[in-house]
Amino acid sequence: MIYLDNAATTKPDEGAFLQAKEYVTQKFYNPSGLYKEGFALQSELKKARSVLLSKVADETAFEFIFTSCGTESNNQAIFSFARRGNAVTTAGEHSAVLAPFAELKNRGIAEPRYAPLQKDGRVDVQKLLALVDDKTCLLSVMHVNNETGAINDVNQIAKEVKRKNPRTIVHVDGVQAYGKLPYKLAKEIDLYSVSAHKIGGLKGVGGLIKRKSLTLPPYLFGGGQEGGRRSGTENTFGIMQFFYAVEKKFASLKADYERLRGYREKVWAGLDKDIFLRISDENTSPYILSVAAVGLRGEILLHMANDKGLIIGTGSACSSNAKTRYSRVILACGYDEKTADGVLRISFSPETTEEEIESAVGILNEVANDLKNRMK
Amino acid sequence: MIYLDNAATTKPDEGAFLQAKEYVTQKFYNPSGLYKEGFALQSELKKARSVLLSKVADETAFEFIFTSCGTESNNQAIFSFARRGNAVTTAGEHSAVLAPFAELKNRGIAEPRYAPLQKDGRVDVQKLLALVDDKTCLLSVMHVNNETGAINDVNQIAKEVKRKNPRTIVHVDGVQAYGKLPYKLAKEIDLYSVSAHKIGGLKGVGGLIKRKSLTLPPYLFGGGQEGGRRSGTENTFGIMQFFYAVEKKFASLKADYERLRGYREKVWAGLDKDIFLRISDENTSPYILSVAAVGLRGEILLHMANDKGLIIGTGSACSSNAKTRYSRVILACGYDEKTADGVLRISFSPETTEEEIESAVGILNEVANDLKNRMK
Repeated sequence: MIYLDNAATTKPDEGAFLQAKEYVTQKFYNPSGLYKEGFALQSELKKARSVLLSKVADETAFEFIFTSCGTESNNQAIFSFARRGNAVTTAGEHSAVLAPFAELKNRGIAEPRYAPLQKDGRVDVQKLLALVDDKTCLLSVMHVNNETGAINDVNQIAKEVKRKNPRTIVHVDGVQAYGKLPYKLAKEIDLYSVSAHKIGGLKGVGGLIKRKSLTLPPYLFGGGQEGGRRSGTENTFGIMQFFYAVEKKFASLKADYERLRGYREKVWAGLDKDIFLRISDENTSPYILSVAAVGLRGEILLHMANDKGLIIGTGSACSSNAKTRYSRVILACGYDEKTADGVLRISFSPETTEEEIESAVGILNEVANDLKNRMK
Repeated sequence: MIYLDNAATTKPDEGAFLQAKEYVTQKFYNPSGLYKEGFALQSELKKARSVLLSKVADETAFEFIFTSCGTESNNQAIFSFARRGNAVTTAGEHSAVLAPFAELKNRGIAEPRYAPLQKDGRVDVQKLLALVDDKTCLLSVMHVNNETGAINDVNQIAKEVKRKNPRTIVHVDGVQAYGKLPYKLAKEIDLYSVSAHKIGGLKGVGGLIKRKSLTLPPYLFGGGQEGGRRSGTENTFGIMQFFYAVEKKFASLKADYERLRGYREKVWAGLDKDIFLRISDENTSPYILSVAAVGLRGEILLHMANDKGLIIGTGSACSSNAKTRYSRVILACGYDEKTADGVLRISFSPETTEEEIESAVGILNEVANDLKNRMK
């Protein structure tokens, strides 16, 4: 089976899994225990927190809070700071941002405002900034789009938002960027969400990076873990597996980035141009290639490829629960429904091999031509 | 090391861990994936959900929703239904209930009301019922107290609450009961929280059992997982490890219950009666024995025992972040501060051996006499 749906989830890093296993077999204690084994675990969590943070941010200005997933991080950021006035986001966000924004409106908490996307999948920054006014309490923008791979210049956006309204809290959904792109967070970013399972970690582990001087209210109240900002017994095994996976991921981040860029171009070069239209341009994340088989149904192609041993996606796996036929992100880029209906998302990981992408191209051309011929 | 702090967390079941490992190495897919491997995972999660539910509830009347922990389950239950009027709970609850109740007051959402405990640690049911009126939107009561092991008759309480106000939603924190006591939920219980890591599961996995006909709003909004009631990619590995651990735990639940009751009595019989006062009476959960070394400091005894290879607790591990010296639960039982200061919680698991409890008794008598002599 060739797995090219790594934007939905990655195969957990088995080395990291084995390294973390001692937190199940030996160091299984409750980190809040008053005995020395509990304190020792607190120190290990502190170290993990510091390393996970230092990969993308200045440790003197930011801190790292463990959560149960990217969705929780996004919910906590949005519901904590979108308290009145209006809250600004983009049409390209993941449902873990758009659904909380819809809830802001349902509950009458704040007026949600949505900036449109450009054809390349990035947010239209001028239109985004035009939505920010003196009543904007929160702005949430994603770093890398999970369907197209489009990269927003979140540091620049944060700077310009703060220039327009220094009181606007800037949240960035970094789930598809952390561990994949080289960057450091600008000091104008207040909150940044990350997830473990998109980069070799386990499902059920996430993080919320926050500016140290920002007071973050808890979203889960209880025993006061994570400095009172996230109660619930710490998921030590999941956290340590994440930590080990991240150490490995960042050690080869730039090399992986270049190699996968080559793979992405090779896939595009190999795809039948009579059928496929490229959605992700060359400036997007090398981890995602979005293409459209215009006039064909992406979901049928996905199943046909699946039968031949290739796993790909049509868009966000998280949207599959919505039962909507067309990707709202692709439509927001300005494509028509016929194009949106044919979208396939091919997403890579550092474990992807050249042989796999060669086979994948063959399968994709075969099933697309097969379906096209059947429709004649 | 003798580990008798199982009410704080248990050593994860290693057999269950190995059984679940295939969800990391092979079946690592996103359960929302549209390919057949994703659908297969959904079926497996459905089966796990059904088995976890069937152990304590009628599957035709209840359903099981996965969450990231007992704290999340409690928060979702409380914030979803304590929306106006008043909300009733007890003085003996875990901080994952008391902290959300405090927040209800902070935000002016609902008036929190607290029923007192009896000397045996159970809630005073008549006083609890007296707090329920026609404006009570939610009542939250724990099944087994995490510090004393006291068992509330939650089925009977739920019936009486509904008789007084059929619109009051009844939530039960079952974290210290699930997988430890034999019971079936009465149909008058609306919501019931459980946690994996208290019974051989991993940290980071919990569940919220709900009455099927009750509409539960989401607390985490996003991709619509768990039927829209809990978004975030499902923690498949953690869930399946929980499932395997539960299968094993319930297979020997009654035998473990009887055996641990014997152990608990043996520990009490062996403890020096000139020093120790029994807090947990014979009707409490066999998994917890709470005693007080009156006039000595429990925390010092904990450290002295720790140095001799015995791990016990002084109360809730989750309260260690609160930095309060006295257990509020022990005080709520009517004990004075001197007694509360000397409390030790000895908590068992089915893996506890007779040799371990014999050694533990020896260590506890030794350190308590040692400390007592030093204070002369």
